[in-house]
Amino acid sequence: MNMAEQMKMVEKRTVNGVNVTQLFSTIDTLKEKPELGKFKFRATNKWISGMHNRATVKDFYGAGQEDTSRTEPWVFDADEPPVLVGENRGANPVEYALVALSACLTTALIGHAAARGIKLDEVESKFEGDLDVRGFLGVSESVRNGYENVRVTFRIKADAPREKLQELVEVAQKRSPVFDIFTHPTPVSVTLET
Amino acid sequence: MNMAEQMKMVEKRTVNGVNVTQLFSTIDTLKEKPELGKFKFRATNKWISGMHNRATVKDFYGAGQEDTSRTEPWVFDADEPPVLVGENRGANPVEYALVALSACLTTALIGHAAARGIKLDEVESKFEGDLDVRGFLGVSESVRNGYENVRVTFRIKADAPREKLQELVEVAQKRSPVFDIFTHPTPVSVTLET
Repeated sequence: MNMAEQMKMVEKRTVNGVNVTQLFSTIDTLKEKPELGKFKFRATNKWISGMHNRATVKDFYGAGQEDTSRTEPWVFDADEPPVLVGENRGANPVEYALVALSACLTTALIGHAAARGIKLDEVESKFEGDLDVRGFLGVSESVRNGYENVRVTFRIKADAPREKLQELVEVAQKRSPVFDIFTHPTPVSVTLET
Repeated sequence: MNMAEQMKMVEKRTVNGVNVTQLFSTIDTLKEKPELGKFKFRATNKWISGMHNRATVKDFYGAGQEDTSRTEPWVFDADEPPVLVGENRGANPVEYALVALSACLTTALIGHAAARGIKLDEVESKFEGDLDVRGFLGVSESVRNGYENVRVTFRIKADAPREKLQELVEVAQKRSPVFDIFTHPTPVSVTLET
């Protein structure tokens, strides 16, 4: 390793591909200036036809300013399968909810593993939710509209004792924002623009 | 209109691009055979590196059988922006949660408008959620991890009185599965595979 490479190691220590130097510096900054922790995330949606609609994600507010790091939006098509009167032009909304949950639990698990210095080789997970479509279709008032329950299975490869990995699975649930959205009520206000 | 076209109109009456003939037939079937309403939706996730992970959606169980209508999976990359120690290789998990909410409220609104015979020209919506990242990062125990609140604005163009459109916005909230997931607790069990 030459000196330039050594300097780089000091500047940017990574665990699991996470820049933990930046992570700890961010945590220190937020302890001093808690107002920088207030973020506003956004999405827009445009109906196309039938069950097909298209969402976009780009800008957000955070760390005291409008973020400018993203130059192009991400575009997400949603639809229903034929059995639910759609044409499979995209994943359906409740599948997107599982995508969000999967990404969030994984991110929380990786981030907290990195902060603890636990190196991981592979992390894979499966998500399955039970949903009775009679709620959505207004056929029954006795079933809920959303998932009755969701089952998640993690498979982790790492040179670490199982106890440590189990702790990571626990801390992921304790810290994941989308796990919180699933398991606790969030106030949502919906307005029709005039 | 020739006879073939007339026949087609009878077979498949559409409102807002929704096949309402199939929609009502589905509702009738579910009244007779409620067990067909039980669906299982799924997603998988694989960690790539750092905050970057990749979810896929393809198969599901519903209407009494494993669905075979999808030949290819949808793939969704998730990451964090640089200010949250990522590299913008995809939308972040809480943004995917807003995508899910946007798609679901739109689908519920369109579906129920079609069932009521209300023709719509344009439906657009905006979603914004307040999230204090100190929860996720474990800096504060006094803020929640998920969204403190979410604001949704719908803009609808239609040749219908505002009262009717307001009713649609209400029924969308009443029937949307993802709105239910946001506003009510869902049991989620997380297991580490041995």
